[in-house]
Amino acid sequence: MADWLEALDSLARERAKAGLTRQLRPRAAGDTVVDLAGNDYLGLSAHPRVIAAARETLEGYGLGATGSRLVRGSTGPHAELEEALAGWLGAESALVFSSGYLANLAVVRAVGAVCDLVVSDAYNHASLIDGCRISGLPVRVSPHNDPAAVAAILEAHPGRAAVVTESVFSVDGDLAPLAALHEVTAAHGALLIVDDAHALGLLGPSGAGGVAAAGLAGAPDVIVTATLSKSLGGAGGVVAGPAAFVRHLIDTGRSFIYDTAPPPAVVAGVLAAVGIAREADDRRAVLFERGARIAARLREAGLPARDPAAGVLSVPAPGPEAAVAWAADCRDRGVAVGCFRPPSTPDGSSRLRLTVNAGVPETDFARALTVILECAP
Amino acid sequence: MADWLEALDSLARERAKAGLTRQLRPRAAGDTVVDLAGNDYLGLSAHPRVIAAARETLEGYGLGATGSRLVRGSTGPHAELEEALAGWLGAESALVFSSGYLANLAVVRAVGAVCDLVVSDAYNHASLIDGCRISGLPVRVSPHNDPAAVAAILEAHPGRAAVVTESVFSVDGDLAPLAALHEVTAAHGALLIVDDAHALGLLGPSGAGGVAAAGLAGAPDVIVTATLSKSLGGAGGVVAGPAAFVRHLIDTGRSFIYDTAPPPAVVAGVLAAVGIAREADDRRAVLFERGARIAARLREAGLPARDPAAGVLSVPAPGPEAAVAWAADCRDRGVAVGCFRPPSTPDGSSRLRLTVNAGVPETDFARALTVILECAP
Repeated sequence: MADWLEALDSLARERAKAGLTRQLRPRAAGDTVVDLAGNDYLGLSAHPRVIAAARETLEGYGLGATGSRLVRGSTGPHAELEEALAGWLGAESALVFSSGYLANLAVVRAVGAVCDLVVSDAYNHASLIDGCRISGLPVRVSPHNDPAAVAAILEAHPGRAAVVTESVFSVDGDLAPLAALHEVTAAHGALLIVDDAHALGLLGPSGAGGVAAAGLAGAPDVIVTATLSKSLGGAGGVVAGPAAFVRHLIDTGRSFIYDTAPPPAVVAGVLAAVGIAREADDRRAVLFERGARIAARLREAGLPARDPAAGVLSVPAPGPEAAVAWAADCRDRGVAVGCFRPPSTPDGSSRLRLTVNAGVPETDFARALTVILECAP
Repeated sequence: MADWLEALDSLARERAKAGLTRQLRPRAAGDTVVDLAGNDYLGLSAHPRVIAAARETLEGYGLGATGSRLVRGSTGPHAELEEALAGWLGAESALVFSSGYLANLAVVRAVGAVCDLVVSDAYNHASLIDGCRISGLPVRVSPHNDPAAVAAILEAHPGRAAVVTESVFSVDGDLAPLAALHEVTAAHGALLIVDDAHALGLLGPSGAGGVAAAGLAGAPDVIVTATLSKSLGGAGGVVAGPAAFVRHLIDTGRSFIYDTAPPPAVVAGVLAAVGIAREADDRRAVLFERGARIAARLREAGLPARDPAAGVLSVPAPGPEAAVAWAADCRDRGVAVGCFRPPSTPDGSSRLRLTVNAGVPETDFARALTVILECAP
């Protein structure tokens, strides 16, 4: 075996010893496992109108977009989805990417045209961190959810900064103090970039997201990113903000210009999902009731749990092996839960991540909750 | 208007003056424009078997993957596609990503575990350049297609390096000297990373790509990346190589772990396309005949053109405005061609990029060729 492969094998053995090996377990179509692991918060990935829209566009356009948006890949559904998303989020303009990861890379890099510092929350998603690296800008990591610390950094910085945060954090499910952060950024002429991936469709009026819930929709110094793969049940990402910023992304955004556009059929399915999500207060009510119920049951069982801000709950485990065993026991009893270990956890701990899917039938959900508690270490 | 937006507007005006503004022009389903711009080289994006496979999986799994591969997004089609791609490319193992861009980011970052230098061809794709940045490794840019220069860099470097190149370059369509590069990397114990995006399905036995064509399929010191959105007519990316390397990506690859999986329906469509592409020597023959014909006609008209290595031809234009006008005139006459200007061109020049699509009917192709020549500046 080549020596570099031996070196990789040695690293793999170290990860195995530390309980950090990851397994890909394909699920079957229509499996009966109850989903408390995915991000299909409103249960729209299998909604008949979503599937019908995707199917119809698949027949009309074929499967792939056949090129980047600028060269060949832009279609009617892409333009319609951008208009619908901008309208929903209250932004001047929106631009769709093939992944939320690529949207985040583009935004952090793009603010380099007008900013000379990025202030990044300590718990930010990998895609935002990678965006910081690609931007080439100086980066200050701020303590998690601490507007006063952000203010101190901005106070000491003479130029224009961009402050980057998630709205609902992806692992712990806690909410950023967006209104307080915006007061700080506005006072210092800084931009506020918010990754709304885990709040879009869940928080705010008509589910318009965490930024809208904080009263910041359409603010000219706020840029929103989100995924189209969570509450919207599809795939891709979006950037929403001032038209001049979106124009800048179209002309200079590397992960926009040099990437094949998302498939028209996927885009059309997401467009249908936006229409459903805007009207889905009933599904949101189910989601919040379930989130509160999980937290209450966990607390009754002596496990620490906060009422979730949106659809994500985090439950500490004694260690990585215990977290893996807990998740495996649940899976053996037909319940999928997320098992998060380093490096996927911001604080280096291990835990279950439970997500609420409003589309899961109530009897299944109730049984899943019992299983999770019975399997607890 | 906020001052940062004024600054962005000022940059937009500068781009407009330089002829570098980009326009998104949505195309309609079933439009009659002849495609010499996209990357659907084998015409598989609308192949009935591709569409049928995607449609069937859409009904079975719903639209989105609902999570990352590790948490909830892996499905039967994902596993089957990886097995099919590894078999086709002659690699031990393969891993699918939601975009070729994200696959490239993952690979360059991952070799940081065993390498301490990246040697990157001067004409490499933006995603490879961004991968270099994310890796945090020292980067040496080597002159385009120059194995001797790569050898000199490796000679002077005591550690293990990774040499990164495309096989068929995306803008000019020229072929990297892969066999010569591999001699150099093998002699110095370096890894060779090849982005085979524009050669997969086109070159090599059964269309297995540029790496296979160079006799390097399955070499234990070669890592291949490719897109699933070009000759395969779908979306997404793939990394193929030694199993230990793929295992390393599954455990540590940020743009794999922290990204929603590509939609099962898209993956199933691509899987069907792999089966067709392997048997598509007839389509490849059409593609190469057409490529040679375009080049010959351009040369007859006094325009510089080389016979393309695969499906991409580059035709110089006098400047960015002339390139835009040329492409616009073609489009007005029903022919889509690529218009590439800085920063999308490695040498800062402007040109048309013509791509060959074997699925275009012969009469349309012949007419398109005439239109391109009649519109030449």
